[in-house]
Amino acid sequence: MHYERDAIQDMAGYTPGEQPDSGDAIKLNTNENPYPPPEGVTAALREIPAEALRRYPSPSSAEFRAMAAEVHNLASEQIVTTNGGDELLRLAITTFVEPGRPIGVADPSYSLYPVLAAINDSPVIRVPLADSWRPPSDFAQRLNDQGAALAFLVNPHAPSGCLLDADTIAAIAERFHGVLVLDEAYVDFVDPSHGHDIPSLLDRQDNLLVLRTMSKGYSLAGLRLGYGLAAPGLIEPMAAKTRDSYSVDAVAERLGIAALAYRQEAAKTWQAVRHERERLRRELAKRGMAADPSEANFVLASVPSRLAGGAAALYQGLRERNILVRHFEHERLHSSLRITVGTPDQNDRLLAGIDDVLRHGAHSA
Amino acid sequence: MHYERDAIQDMAGYTPGEQPDSGDAIKLNTNENPYPPPEGVTAALREIPAEALRRYPSPSSAEFRAMAAEVHNLASEQIVTTNGGDELLRLAITTFVEPGRPIGVADPSYSLYPVLAAINDSPVIRVPLADSWRPPSDFAQRLNDQGAALAFLVNPHAPSGCLLDADTIAAIAERFHGVLVLDEAYVDFVDPSHGHDIPSLLDRQDNLLVLRTMSKGYSLAGLRLGYGLAAPGLIEPMAAKTRDSYSVDAVAERLGIAALAYRQEAAKTWQAVRHERERLRRELAKRGMAADPSEANFVLASVPSRLAGGAAALYQGLRERNILVRHFEHERLHSSLRITVGTPDQNDRLLAGIDDVLRHGAHSA
Repeated sequence: MHYERDAIQDMAGYTPGEQPDSGDAIKLNTNENPYPPPEGVTAALREIPAEALRRYPSPSSAEFRAMAAEVHNLASEQIVTTNGGDELLRLAITTFVEPGRPIGVADPSYSLYPVLAAINDSPVIRVPLADSWRPPSDFAQRLNDQGAALAFLVNPHAPSGCLLDADTIAAIAERFHGVLVLDEAYVDFVDPSHGHDIPSLLDRQDNLLVLRTMSKGYSLAGLRLGYGLAAPGLIEPMAAKTRDSYSVDAVAERLGIAALAYRQEAAKTWQAVRHERERLRRELAKRGMAADPSEANFVLASVPSRLAGGAAALYQGLRERNILVRHFEHERLHSSLRITVGTPDQNDRLLAGIDDVLRHGAHSA
Repeated sequence: MHYERDAIQDMAGYTPGEQPDSGDAIKLNTNENPYPPPEGVTAALREIPAEALRRYPSPSSAEFRAMAAEVHNLASEQIVTTNGGDELLRLAITTFVEPGRPIGVADPSYSLYPVLAAINDSPVIRVPLADSWRPPSDFAQRLNDQGAALAFLVNPHAPSGCLLDADTIAAIAERFHGVLVLDEAYVDFVDPSHGHDIPSLLDRQDNLLVLRTMSKGYSLAGLRLGYGLAAPGLIEPMAAKTRDSYSVDAVAERLGIAALAYRQEAAKTWQAVRHERERLRRELAKRGMAADPSEANFVLASVPSRLAGGAAALYQGLRERNILVRHFEHERLHSSLRITVGTPDQNDRLLAGIDDVLRHGAHSA
């Protein structure tokens, strides 16, 4: 006897990256920013009055939305706050996808998307990315042909870090008949010299929903604060109907406001991450572990075929040295590791760990 | 052109109680505990390191669950944490109710239940409560006859405060073929002399899901931390499959642990609320505003028919005096007000406000 729906019984849940209790591990497996949040955020934390805990928070996070609207040059009505970016992904499906209707994803990408689709009884249309990790030119057309009500694109792409420019995104959104969810979880790490700007598309793309999160760029993964940017017609049904009431807590809203206020300080960490990202790529390349250019805070590094056991063995060997990176089973990722860019010291220790494994092999390999 | 599902376009969202920005109002409209959280909670808040913000939280709130397991004399596998109790309500539907299958509710009760049902395309079976606000003896049978996959019961009942004992709950769960969600949001305010204990039923009722929240009893509505108690067979699909990854943030988990550790301090506020609840009932009765016995932190008071405009006018008159209470449109609630039990001073000012409105009438009445 089971009570859960058949679809739930049949599906597998999402496997989050390992979150060790101990602070000893060099944790380069879940794409946190290696630097602490701006000091103004921890100061705001210390100042939260007991009264803010006792009372319900603002149902719509009105103050945070006003602040984010200013940052993105949008109106508050174009913003919905969520309990981390993950809540926005689920909310988009609940709101825009009739149970059972197909959902499109670029393949490979964030492995949570198919899990959320399964919960909605939605078949997943997987469109393979080209060798460059870019969607094929008929991406939208293929999704339309198969009746996708919604599609997820992560940009910069995970796990490669490849960035699509605004024209490419606009062209896909224009052609696609459903809602295009553009997951910009890593956008803060894009080099500013690209002038990359997606929110400015929203005034003309009424089917584009942009996900932002405070987890990565603002070093607030522990806080769970994300938000969606879109035309009011997409925001309103989520904000007024399908979103859990009070889904963003009072602490998250206050610290989120502080983080946006001190974003110049956060921006310095983005610059530091970019600098280390390029150094890491160079150092990995010297070890035969080439990684494609990345605009995110991670790199996807190929593992030299000379290592017995391949990427899985390197993953395991690093793990035994208390260095956590991410390895995926997907066939196009199987010979690579996704490595979060750490601090210079963390990256040095990662590289030393890699040298050690490459020299001696992994114990369990 | 609209992108949201037809069911979403057709439905109305939940209307949360008013959350005024100003701290001046006497806020007796959303059932917060009038006393601050235990001091150990605010101390724990001050001690949260930046590192806890930077990193992802425990995906399953392992430490909080271990603590709650101890408090309720259950195993960790019988507990799932959620972003406030509201997330558990939604999660229960997502997990156990095929889209379109009926959901049962006692009528009247928490107005969020039908909203969550509508999002799931589920018709709502409303079973009218008896005059005593108790479910009719054939409650489970009626739900079975109409194929309800899940039913919501709030106990103590909202908005009356009526308490069903464990035998009554067990009998309903036993007869009901679906999942019975027992919403115990207000259970901390039940007089301990009743020896009321529902979690001990869980070892034999495999279809009973008990909702608990830190919002009311522990004065942490701003934090959004709730949890579900049930047999492992009900918990597992929610915890491992349908729940948003990392839905409980690091701050909420830490403060929740502190709150449970200092629950003796919270229990003093429950005692104070019970004391004031009885005084408030007596004082309201003197004014012709009888309220049924309540085991929650609110009372449902009838409004004297001599007041022109009735309960709506009293609500409005109090509002003009900066005193917020709750008035519902439901026909069986229309001549009553739900009043959260405040501090002695707040209750005195409420009573003075009522006297004033009864004497002069509401401006807009």
